[in-house]
Amino acid sequence: MPETSSPVRRRHALPIKGSRFLIVGGASLVGSASAELFLAQGAAEVVILDNFFQGSTAAIKHLEGDQRLKVVQGDVLRLPQLIAAARGIDGVLHLAALMSLSMDRDPWMGIDVNVRGTQNMIEAACVGGVRKLVFASSSAVYGYGPGVAGDLVETTPFHSAGAPPGAILYGASKIMGEQLCRDAHAKRGLDYVVVRYSTVYGERQHYRAANALYIIETHDRVRRGLRPRVIGDGSETKHFVHVSDAARANAAAFAADATDVAVNISGPRPITTLEIVRLVTELAGKDLAPEHVEPDPGKVRLTSGGAWKLDHTLSERVIGWRPQVEMRDGIRRLIAWREATETAT
Amino acid sequence: MPETSSPVRRRHALPIKGSRFLIVGGASLVGSASAELFLAQGAAEVVILDNFFQGSTAAIKHLEGDQRLKVVQGDVLRLPQLIAAARGIDGVLHLAALMSLSMDRDPWMGIDVNVRGTQNMIEAACVGGVRKLVFASSSAVYGYGPGVAGDLVETTPFHSAGAPPGAILYGASKIMGEQLCRDAHAKRGLDYVVVRYSTVYGERQHYRAANALYIIETHDRVRRGLRPRVIGDGSETKHFVHVSDAARANAAAFAADATDVAVNISGPRPITTLEIVRLVTELAGKDLAPEHVEPDPGKVRLTSGGAWKLDHTLSERVIGWRPQVEMRDGIRRLIAWREATETAT
Repeated sequence: MPETSSPVRRRHALPIKGSRFLIVGGASLVGSASAELFLAQGAAEVVILDNFFQGSTAAIKHLEGDQRLKVVQGDVLRLPQLIAAARGIDGVLHLAALMSLSMDRDPWMGIDVNVRGTQNMIEAACVGGVRKLVFASSSAVYGYGPGVAGDLVETTPFHSAGAPPGAILYGASKIMGEQLCRDAHAKRGLDYVVVRYSTVYGERQHYRAANALYIIETHDRVRRGLRPRVIGDGSETKHFVHVSDAARANAAAFAADATDVAVNISGPRPITTLEIVRLVTELAGKDLAPEHVEPDPGKVRLTSGGAWKLDHTLSERVIGWRPQVEMRDGIRRLIAWREATETAT
Repeated sequence: MPETSSPVRRRHALPIKGSRFLIVGGASLVGSASAELFLAQGAAEVVILDNFFQGSTAAIKHLEGDQRLKVVQGDVLRLPQLIAAARGIDGVLHLAALMSLSMDRDPWMGIDVNVRGTQNMIEAACVGGVRKLVFASSSAVYGYGPGVAGDLVETTPFHSAGAPPGAILYGASKIMGEQLCRDAHAKRGLDYVVVRYSTVYGERQHYRAANALYIIETHDRVRRGLRPRVIGDGSETKHFVHVSDAARANAAAFAADATDVAVNISGPRPITTLEIVRLVTELAGKDLAPEHVEPDPGKVRLTSGGAWKLDHTLSERVIGWRPQVEMRDGIRRLIAWREATETAT
């Protein structure tokens, strides 16, 4: 639990129970799990705002029927829509963003959504008297390439040498979003917590996160009886966090008496790409040896410089959160969800 | 001189002599010195585009009368104006930007000018068939705070822990601008060189650069007979580059057979804030001992973590440039210019 000097002076805490939340970009992997959790924890209202450009109604179908849930079609580039949506809201979870792959395809759109969209949401939160903003950032603020090694803590700098433009633009857009929060806190008193997720995976997984593709592309192949592919020798480190842990982190960021701080959110431990592929193959019930392939030069790949982990020690201290889901369980859940909802292609 | 395999295959070189240049944000410290140099080196045309929000007609008054110079009022946020201005242009020098102090005052404006303005200029350059873009970046891409120490080379990461939001937003906006150039090179074949200036100082100095204030605020005080002020013990390192050296670097970046590269542009050596203050006092002909003061908490200060320098070794190799002006000469020129053009206040 976070340290508090006195239970009556938790003025930066926003309890989930009884509060009203707006989840921006909510028809998504992290948004749908967060909405579900906030409702389960007794939120008075959860408004999901999405432009359904990347988000989908399928991602929030399991929440249908709860009278406290409201879905609004809106775009972060349209400030009046955000001002209207933020009216009467206590807490805003800002998720709307384009990731590296989309940023590579369309930097104009990506910068608009990630930077201007965050500016707009902060403006709407300040105008609407929102009590707390949780901003979804990313381990991308530590960058990519040979410099990324060892323990990444909240003061680790942004490495970009050798990384593709789309990935650097994405990381820089998250750095900017965080600083816009700090600026709004300093000048306008907006309480906020930045949650820097490592790669999120789990039920309702999409194909837009470069690193999560290691899981779902492997599953796509092995369930068709094809050998899974590993790029290079498979020794590269990745660090995932299960979507239910990310949702718990979002709830904890609101509920904790914390503000003006950024914390890492990652799973229990990192994994190599070869281990991911082997684990997915095993849990899919297949006995297929991985095939080592060369990287596709046309694809945005997020590389690092050796073994590393996204250290979540500060998160435990500041928002009282730690991950619960080991990858073996998380991948099992993801595979079960895929098998229940899709026909193998 | 840059390495070239053969003089006949310098396809990324744009000679100054006989070429037509557009200098965006040109009614400025660096812009006016670059225009002067390009004209002196035989440019066929130099178009200065500025919205005169920060730039001033005074900054380019000394260029009046040269028939090859054209001044256009235009704004980087208005793409059609850039498209019109880039018509028939061979080389674009993109300088328009807000620096840390202005970014702190108005992040919306700063991000618009630095990021959207660069996107617009790249678009106009591609549409207009411009042969080469030189993008003015900054040592701010290496950040600030305790992490900034030692030799800063082109692969040094971006440090932001402990730095103010305005400074981080400025640095991130320059990182984005550089990546937008890389993206345009990869996807649209635009040749470009990024020049990462350290703090530029010299004739036509303004009050907008946080670090250059060490020079001009000292001069403002000592010429009124007041003791100069040093923040703290004055041991903090700064690295300046004289505006004439920055202008030469811009010309070299066009003329060299280099593309898709970023290089550091800095003066012969770094200096401490105490040394700056003493040098300015001496060259102003005053005998006043510095007064050590505490930092003003309301001001954006750009700090570092110890002795550091912006290493310009790569620049010498890639664009054949090295600085010529020592600070003693550069400050003497700046003081002479101020005394010739202003009445002491």
